[in-house]
Amino acid sequence: MSNLGRGSYTIRLNIPNQPGALAQVTGLIAEYGGITGAIDIVRVEEDSLVRDITFDGVTPEVCEALLRALADIQGVEVVNISDRVFLMHLGGKISMQSKIPVMTRNDLSIAYTPGVAKVCTAIHEDESKVYSLTVKRNTVAVVSDGSAVLGLGDIGPKAAMPVMEGKAQLFKAFGNVDAWPICLDSQTTEEIVTAVKAIAPGFGGINLEDISAPRCFEIEQRLRDELDIPVFHDDQHGTAVVMTAGLINALKVVNKKAEDIRVVMVGVGAAGTACMHMMRDMGIKNIIGCDRDGALYVGRDEHMDSSKQAFAAVTNPNKEHGTLTDVIKGADIFIGLSGPGVLNVDHVKSMAKDPIVFAMSNPIPEIMPEEAAPHVAIMATGRSDYPNQINNVLCFPGIFRGALDCRAHTITEGMKMAAAKAIASCISDAELCAEYIIPGVFDQRVSKLVAAAVVEEFKNQL
Amino acid sequence: MSNLGRGSYTIRLNIPNQPGALAQVTGLIAEYGGITGAIDIVRVEEDSLVRDITFDGVTPEVCEALLRALADIQGVEVVNISDRVFLMHLGGKISMQSKIPVMTRNDLSIAYTPGVAKVCTAIHEDESKVYSLTVKRNTVAVVSDGSAVLGLGDIGPKAAMPVMEGKAQLFKAFGNVDAWPICLDSQTTEEIVTAVKAIAPGFGGINLEDISAPRCFEIEQRLRDELDIPVFHDDQHGTAVVMTAGLINALKVVNKKAEDIRVVMVGVGAAGTACMHMMRDMGIKNIIGCDRDGALYVGRDEHMDSSKQAFAAVTNPNKEHGTLTDVIKGADIFIGLSGPGVLNVDHVKSMAKDPIVFAMSNPIPEIMPEEAAPHVAIMATGRSDYPNQINNVLCFPGIFRGALDCRAHTITEGMKMAAAKAIASCISDAELCAEYIIPGVFDQRVSKLVAAAVVEEFKNQL
Repeated sequence: MSNLGRGSYTIRLNIPNQPGALAQVTGLIAEYGGITGAIDIVRVEEDSLVRDITFDGVTPEVCEALLRALADIQGVEVVNISDRVFLMHLGGKISMQSKIPVMTRNDLSIAYTPGVAKVCTAIHEDESKVYSLTVKRNTVAVVSDGSAVLGLGDIGPKAAMPVMEGKAQLFKAFGNVDAWPICLDSQTTEEIVTAVKAIAPGFGGINLEDISAPRCFEIEQRLRDELDIPVFHDDQHGTAVVMTAGLINALKVVNKKAEDIRVVMVGVGAAGTACMHMMRDMGIKNIIGCDRDGALYVGRDEHMDSSKQAFAAVTNPNKEHGTLTDVIKGADIFIGLSGPGVLNVDHVKSMAKDPIVFAMSNPIPEIMPEEAAPHVAIMATGRSDYPNQINNVLCFPGIFRGALDCRAHTITEGMKMAAAKAIASCISDAELCAEYIIPGVFDQRVSKLVAAAVVEEFKNQL
Repeated sequence: MSNLGRGSYTIRLNIPNQPGALAQVTGLIAEYGGITGAIDIVRVEEDSLVRDITFDGVTPEVCEALLRALADIQGVEVVNISDRVFLMHLGGKISMQSKIPVMTRNDLSIAYTPGVAKVCTAIHEDESKVYSLTVKRNTVAVVSDGSAVLGLGDIGPKAAMPVMEGKAQLFKAFGNVDAWPICLDSQTTEEIVTAVKAIAPGFGGINLEDISAPRCFEIEQRLRDELDIPVFHDDQHGTAVVMTAGLINALKVVNKKAEDIRVVMVGVGAAGTACMHMMRDMGIKNIIGCDRDGALYVGRDEHMDSSKQAFAAVTNPNKEHGTLTDVIKGADIFIGLSGPGVLNVDHVKSMAKDPIVFAMSNPIPEIMPEEAAPHVAIMATGRSDYPNQINNVLCFPGIFRGALDCRAHTITEGMKMAAAKAIASCISDAELCAEYIIPGVFDQRVSKLVAAAVVEEFKNQL
């Protein structure tokens, strides 16, 4: 069912050079549920062959049992085992490449002195030329302080690097953006703002990533105000854009109108707040945010802070009180950005007709799709192994591609909504159904449509 | 003689579709001294062909005259002209590339979530693993504030980008280092130090570039003290290392000993100070630094500052006074890091027997080699069109390659001297002569030998 916790492994085995020996090995891998991939010969010894065998589909525990079983085969020796994920990370996942060769004296004089001097002078005389004559035009800094990395929390800037390199890879693969990871050795708002402003001249955009709330709000706002390049906190807005795309299509499927529905959401942090704002922009009038203490409303005293007060001020128009169990009754939509098991079957049963559940907690949703299925009209999660995955990669490569292409100074609310509509538009009315409200992450049309929508919206705003 | 100021051009011409018309065009280009390269057809019109013709070898002035002559050919129309240097800079000269594909769900889960999480956790548990599992191991930030770019001066961070991209290309081409340009929007020492410290976790080294004196001294010293990765101001130390390599071989050629000679140098800024220190490390005891006011000595009152006082304190042991004309008399070596025409023929004639002149002002040396030739034993410049080019590219790719390979926390004086000796060693005693004291920039042995020497020195220091 799920591949979570399962990895790819490469084992190096010394296998006797006898008929059937290799078949015994691959048979055993299959017996333990492993799927064999590449089999490479490393070297030939007198009576044996040393081979690297790659397989996946088993948990680390099963893999260990498998290794013991392999070692028990007469003559087989386990030389070592490598986790393929670690192998793929050796030396990092990205590199810098020259677009033009530097092989001859002439190349050198174009790339560097003396030829480069006139290019510098041209930019010095007209700063806007930095966009056409340098990599700024196509570059985004993927900036993190490592304070809220994936589900791992505050692991610091060095441990955050593999995620930011991965993000840079996704920027390239899906948006042809040259992103570079910048992991900051500071978690002070002021220092982060100062550092990002300092490095901005060489970048065309700033993607903030995995910075914990509430600092992420102020950092983003300050950078948006003080920089002339787009600044986008993906954890907030990427999630909100893709969720909005899913909601647009989900409402079509159940034939409900944004202005008529009531939404209950659990999780009112960075992503939740951004989702709330986009739902309001969609025309949804009745949104109730919940935290551990239940519904947020104007006048609640317990466990409020400035961001929760701001959230309450623009939501829950009827000032409903109570726990999630109280307020979920009759709700049309549940939006979860909290944690595993927050929503139970009774909650879902108490919702309005044709309930929509977006359980986006990762890796374990607020309610598992199997449990919710009999009682919901539409279900979406953050996971790739169920239908309707709400995945930020549908948004950030295209939204930055568009912003870079039109040299936008900022990514506006209008651009985010245009991006959401573009993502939603990838699914035609004929294709649209409860199990297919959001395109797959490898749908090549998405980032192009998103980029085009952003550019179009930019022109409309001029 | 020199290609300085000469560029490559691409002209788009509409040429009549008649026998001999193209030949007339290429003939005219040759007549004006141009060397024709690629000839591409852009499109076919009714009676004519639109072609892009690339040529070089002519100055901008000659190119303009050529264009007028081309337009005078019956039927030929000059559509436009592009400078090839600008063409090569369009969109920037570097890109970010994934080392592993992101084409499938499996790729995605290795590069990003959920696979990446265990890599992050491994680094969080053992920070030293950031070197094996991320690009930090192979990455250098090329940091500039744009305050002293080439000979152009304070042109700011955006206009400095083409130089820093070029530097990144050289790092890759000569040292297989993944460098990324970081141009800073601040020229305050404190802010630069703070910004560079902030971005350090994701980089394996910091190459400071084109930062003006005296701030560059304090910035480098503070960063060396406060960071655990190598920090190297190339304008100072790169120049000093390559000059030292040249001097080692030059002294061999003229058969003089470091401890016996007297050196006069003009230019006591960032690079000059670094050169002076390395000459002292070579064993040269009598170095006299000069500025516009003549020799620096302990006790001089006019136009001294703290860095000149520090320079004087360790040089000019006999407290010689006077102008360059006074002190150059009898000197064995002249080191120029100043400006065009500082040294004249009479100066050179007044030097000791077998004088060595390193006139490294760029692009125009302190004295032109043609003028100096009859009177010097050995001449070196910063230029590619004369023998013995003192070019930093002989040093920085290899010195960082070595420092990254051994995970050195700093680049020591010992490593710099080891690098200089490695560069000098590329020329065997049999090859060594007055016109060949320093290897060419495309000598592929250099960066490997430099890197190996740095690693060896690192081991010796343990």
